[in-house]
Amino acid sequence: MHLQIDRQARQPLYLQVAEQIRERIRSGALPAGSRLPPIRQLARELGLTRLTVHTAYAELQADGWIESFVGRGSFVAQRRGAQVHRQTAAPLSPEPRAAAGTLVEIMRLAHRPDVLSFAQAAAAPETFPVRAFGRALQAAIKRYERTLFDYGATEGEAALREQLAAFLTIRGLQVPPERILVTNGAQQGIDLVLRALVRPGDTVLVEQPTYLGMVERMQIQGLRLVGVPIDEQGLRPDALAEAITRHAPRLLYTIPAFHNPTGISMSPARQEAILRVAQQHGLLVLEDDIYGLLSYDAPAPLPLKARDSGGQVIYLSSFSKALMPGLRLGLVVADAPLFDELLSCKRLADLHAPQLTQLALAEYLGRGAFAPHLRAVCALYRERRDAMAKALQRSFPREASWFTPQGGLCFWVALPPGVDALELYRAALEQGVAFAPGQAFFPPLATQDHIRLSFAAHAPAVIERGLAILGELIGRHQARQGRQRPVCAGVPLV
Amino acid sequence: MHLQIDRQARQPLYLQVAEQIRERIRSGALPAGSRLPPIRQLARELGLTRLTVHTAYAELQADGWIESFVGRGSFVAQRRGAQVHRQTAAPLSPEPRAAAGTLVEIMRLAHRPDVLSFAQAAAAPETFPVRAFGRALQAAIKRYERTLFDYGATEGEAALREQLAAFLTIRGLQVPPERILVTNGAQQGIDLVLRALVRPGDTVLVEQPTYLGMVERMQIQGLRLVGVPIDEQGLRPDALAEAITRHAPRLLYTIPAFHNPTGISMSPARQEAILRVAQQHGLLVLEDDIYGLLSYDAPAPLPLKARDSGGQVIYLSSFSKALMPGLRLGLVVADAPLFDELLSCKRLADLHAPQLTQLALAEYLGRGAFAPHLRAVCALYRERRDAMAKALQRSFPREASWFTPQGGLCFWVALPPGVDALELYRAALEQGVAFAPGQAFFPPLATQDHIRLSFAAHAPAVIERGLAILGELIGRHQARQGRQRPVCAGVPLV
Repeated sequence: MHLQIDRQARQPLYLQVAEQIRERIRSGALPAGSRLPPIRQLARELGLTRLTVHTAYAELQADGWIESFVGRGSFVAQRRGAQVHRQTAAPLSPEPRAAAGTLVEIMRLAHRPDVLSFAQAAAAPETFPVRAFGRALQAAIKRYERTLFDYGATEGEAALREQLAAFLTIRGLQVPPERILVTNGAQQGIDLVLRALVRPGDTVLVEQPTYLGMVERMQIQGLRLVGVPIDEQGLRPDALAEAITRHAPRLLYTIPAFHNPTGISMSPARQEAILRVAQQHGLLVLEDDIYGLLSYDAPAPLPLKARDSGGQVIYLSSFSKALMPGLRLGLVVADAPLFDELLSCKRLADLHAPQLTQLALAEYLGRGAFAPHLRAVCALYRERRDAMAKALQRSFPREASWFTPQGGLCFWVALPPGVDALELYRAALEQGVAFAPGQAFFPPLATQDHIRLSFAAHAPAVIERGLAILGELIGRHQARQGRQRPVCAGVPLV
Repeated sequence: MHLQIDRQARQPLYLQVAEQIRERIRSGALPAGSRLPPIRQLARELGLTRLTVHTAYAELQADGWIESFVGRGSFVAQRRGAQVHRQTAAPLSPEPRAAAGTLVEIMRLAHRPDVLSFAQAAAAPETFPVRAFGRALQAAIKRYERTLFDYGATEGEAALREQLAAFLTIRGLQVPPERILVTNGAQQGIDLVLRALVRPGDTVLVEQPTYLGMVERMQIQGLRLVGVPIDEQGLRPDALAEAITRHAPRLLYTIPAFHNPTGISMSPARQEAILRVAQQHGLLVLEDDIYGLLSYDAPAPLPLKARDSGGQVIYLSSFSKALMPGLRLGLVVADAPLFDELLSCKRLADLHAPQLTQLALAEYLGRGAFAPHLRAVCALYRERRDAMAKALQRSFPREASWFTPQGGLCFWVALPPGVDALELYRAALEQGVAFAPGQAFFPPLATQDHIRLSFAAHAPAVIERGLAILGELIGRHQARQGRQRPVCAGVPLV
């Protein structure tokens, strides 16, 4: 099938593919029932990655233009009925009509009632303290009345910043409220720091692998993303020093505590070494600590920022993982000149966060409700973490391997040799199970032999059931792949 | 006074000035009681604008390092007592330690209880429907429970988007919910559109004058801002065509209904002409309609978007002016390929807006509460608009002139010849009255002969009192300026 791909166009490649196929279906050039080329073949023909073509097909399928059957391939749909069905299946979360990346797909799958998804590193909704928070909201409305709905302070509400300063002492940080900028979740913290510090063409170092929202965010700004290898103690200082020398980066983005996706925490000695290297080279470090509080086997490891005497570290956290993501509240800690830059960026981005959520959170924290919530959440997630460890042991082939995380929300699983994460992903989706393929977490070049499984949102029995399906599928793919090695060595992300 | 100014530095110029003066005070080089050079003189010495030096002095004064006296100048403070006083005076809105522009100063002044401020184009807090909104909040919590606090849809909650589609019919727009992106206020709408469409170095056309948040937003992205003249019917099509030919802009940003700051609305014929020019040249138009609903003398003029058959117009609105700014909720209407780009930008900026405010607003709109609120608000603002018109007539010199707006929140007043808006601004502040100096609204080159006065937030008696003070000051400056013409013809914005 010949399609015209314009790599210079603003439109994402997968959308170019999807639209041209849709046009052919509309025009009748591709009649109902006709078979689309296999993903691998079309990707080769067009010089695209398989993920790009896969995303295009997924888009067409989501809109009801094509239907896919495991082992048979994809076909032009008889009538566009699938879309109607889909909308009935997931009325509460209308799927975006266009998806720009893996993050979208992960967020989409997490809300489909017909899919058992381990894809999203999300907290369990049943832990959300809806009633206690509702009371905090009422108290905030009563206390602040009209000022709650007027223009507010760009840096965040004073009452919340004071509570955040107290909150940060749990992480060993002594920070005055004036150094804390309230953000719409950690994602906005990342966005503001990149806007303030980095220009198109600049290089940012990240752990390899790293948070996929960071990978995608950097791609749209035209930043160079360089992955630094990690080992079981976290980021490697020797590799970091080498990357600094070679790439003259502007920033290092790191997740030292319960790293996403691997679950690894940086040892104290390693933290010291990393800080030393950063200081020697005058490299700023953006520390993402959103998982730091979710520790199940021992007291949580302290963040880098707690050891940062030289002011090298910009600290980032949020309430999305340990409390409720829908609050969209996070924070950045930065010192004077950078703080002012971040403030300007925040103001011109959206003036300020709503006072309603901020001051309700301040009330909630002020009532001491967070500490018992965190204890309960950690107990629940420990149980689910253990259930997933057991299910992996029971259901996954011996050739798969994983690291059992002491905190955070995910397992990072190495598939048996020859099993392709993306093919497994598609096959699993057909059976109603989803996970995050490892490719998504790798800056530019990726291997396809890992998957990320999140455990927090499911009861042990559900975890067991889902992993039994996955384990069986992996075994099947393993057997098949044993006979036929994949041609392509790496699937770079679009 | 010799200071080192680095124009390439990331640090804003005014902060460079402020910090170096502060250092000298700290070190004793500038002892208590010593007189700082006049703003005009230091600006000339350093090759800076007067506004830059003014902002630096304001910063130092806000932090208690210096004291300024009308007619006498600025002096190093005896002790840093002013800061303590300031914090006691405004406990609910801690002033940002660093301010990056006029917008900050305007927002700051609006919250100082010791200042009567006409500076901010803001709604009157006493109109905020706190109780009705509180009930809508409770209903939303009851109806949505945990999903209210989980990750949500990047494009916005389905229930809100449906209400917004209905809401837009008041503006004559028939837009399906799928074309509506929920944003954190209009400021984020502007930010997302600029991120999706414009690259550093690109040119954007704006009305001259225009919304100052747009001026500042464009400056930090390194965009070229070109002002297009307006007349009493709005943007001039001939000037627009010329600007397009000369500057090859990427976008036109316009506020056709009750334009900020002038209050002028584009006539229907003018709208047609502007759309024709835009269509001829394939120029995208970003229409900011945040004042459109606040019409006092006649039905509100329809937006450009209502006439946009060619899909040339991206439409922007918010609930900050007609309902409550603290909600931080706005919307962008855009067609397919751009909509998807905006969605990506929104996702990578902050994932999504909080469901709490979104779904409470959906409830509020769904109960039909907005229409009576809007009627009441318009009646109140009409009264205040009339009060300001009368006070201007009574208290301002004959040589001042203004346009009485039929909607929106502000008067745009031309000062008598020779009266400098910035000097008037400083003198008025000394007497506890604030307004927005016209300079702030002009892209690069500015004249200093206009001021913007917002009427909505004050009772008629307060308006009368404030304008009496201003009128008297203008008269005094007029007399003085008559004897001594200003040297500098224009004050470009920092």
